[in-house]
Amino acid sequence: MSVEQGAFARATRVSRRSDGSFSAEIFPDWCIGSRPNGGYLLAIALQALGATVPYEDPIVVSSHFLAAPVAGSAEVAVGVVRIGRTLARAEARLTQDGEEHMRVLAAYGSLGGHAHGSQLMQEGPPSMPEPEACIPVLATTPDGRTSPVRSQFDIRYHPESVGWASGIPTGRAEVKAWMRLADGSPPDAALIPLLVDVLPASVYDLGVVGWVPTVEMTIHLRSRPRPGWLLCATQCRFASEGIMEEDASVWDADGVLIATCRQLALLPLASGQAG
Amino acid sequence: MSVEQGAFARATRVSRRSDGSFSAEIFPDWCIGSRPNGGYLLAIALQALGATVPYEDPIVVSSHFLAAPVAGSAEVAVGVVRIGRTLARAEARLTQDGEEHMRVLAAYGSLGGHAHGSQLMQEGPPSMPEPEACIPVLATTPDGRTSPVRSQFDIRYHPESVGWASGIPTGRAEVKAWMRLADGSPPDAALIPLLVDVLPASVYDLGVVGWVPTVEMTIHLRSRPRPGWLLCATQCRFASEGIMEEDASVWDADGVLIATCRQLALLPLASGQAG
Repeated sequence: MSVEQGAFARATRVSRRSDGSFSAEIFPDWCIGSRPNGGYLLAIALQALGATVPYEDPIVVSSHFLAAPVAGSAEVAVGVVRIGRTLARAEARLTQDGEEHMRVLAAYGSLGGHAHGSQLMQEGPPSMPEPEACIPVLATTPDGRTSPVRSQFDIRYHPESVGWASGIPTGRAEVKAWMRLADGSPPDAALIPLLVDVLPASVYDLGVVGWVPTVEMTIHLRSRPRPGWLLCATQCRFASEGIMEEDASVWDADGVLIATCRQLALLPLASGQAG
Repeated sequence: MSVEQGAFARATRVSRRSDGSFSAEIFPDWCIGSRPNGGYLLAIALQALGATVPYEDPIVVSSHFLAAPVAGSAEVAVGVVRIGRTLARAEARLTQDGEEHMRVLAAYGSLGGHAHGSQLMQEGPPSMPEPEACIPVLATTPDGRTSPVRSQFDIRYHPESVGWASGIPTGRAEVKAWMRLADGSPPDAALIPLLVDVLPASVYDLGVVGWVPTVEMTIHLRSRPRPGWLLCATQCRFASEGIMEEDASVWDADGVLIATCRQLALLPLASGQAG
């Protein structure tokens, strides 16, 4: 039985080369403006890491973004750092024309193998109307850039999120949205960084305008994503000194925590380039 | 004028060797039980990184802990990843007898250079009584291990934190404490990971007992620490599937955000070894 690959799988496919590294292709229709967002690059790197380490689940992934590449061919070199009894650590370097654009450190394990008697959750999922009561915002970014990658998703925003898109920033740096792939493909762990990064920056609702380049992003995976809607909630608590953090959590429709994410980004007035 | 180095500076000193790497010494009186905690190891690595990169402030530091070393001599090898206009990226590897124990990725910059017109803070510091109204808990960990490193600090806990130390876990996975170095030395950025890691695990107040090995820790520095008390607040929101995260924020006595920290750790029942 042949299974047709979904658009996400095709856009993040890697091929092992004879020297052990991987070749990849960055597609323009998975970019924001002309730049691939960091979450997309990390999704590509996770395919190469997952093909290398002996455990299935990317439990914790740290990604440092050095400079934005362009659409086109790229290379991912994976190095094993340490294989342990429960975790395997590896690094990945994404390069384009010999220049490094992203460095990743990851710990892979098996979420099934970590089963624990009790769930000590202190917080549940954020309150959210059903997807049918939410709104599909089709706006560009506040400075007018289009987001081709957003068309790859079916996104339903909380009616009180993304006020900037209708001209009235809410003053609360929060975005909540139901998300799924537009072509109906089921999500996997590699999709998580793209999910959280494809949403508009939460600080747009504080009146911030412009590109918010991510310096670093960390993903903690808690459960394997299951088919259906995923609830993504992002929040910025501290935007100061030209720097902001954005926290995200991802939940499935049954209220199971799938992942948390934190990223550090530069505010537009401070810099137009991540370094 | 000669300045006598404080205990923290002596315990994290590194010396450049002829091959460009750094030698270091892990001191037993900066350990918890017989193991150096991750924050201490990271403080050592930050000395080596800071001596290598051209910018002063460790804006974001991702640290992956592979296996716990023992007290004694160690080596830190630093590799420059990319020097940019505003950020320098570098990695560090801490090894002992040729075995790698920690891998760090860091972005250094200049907090002064990122000055931004407005502070878009959505949250202020946590509420906290004055240090004089707080309590110096001298307990060991819940499973009876001593914490020599905690004696390096003057710590004053919120009266409603660390209930487990008096036999009644509060049921809230939160710790709030004023902290400063016991010898009166002023804090610097390299002290931050040690501050947040030296506090008892917040999940002890959920009834968790035992060693909680850190897999990964990320520090976001927002302001250079200033002399005086620092308020450290830690919290676990999601402990599930044998995994927990712990978020920390560090504030100075004037309510300025110094740093945030997030770590991923394994719950004791799942594993006694980080991998």
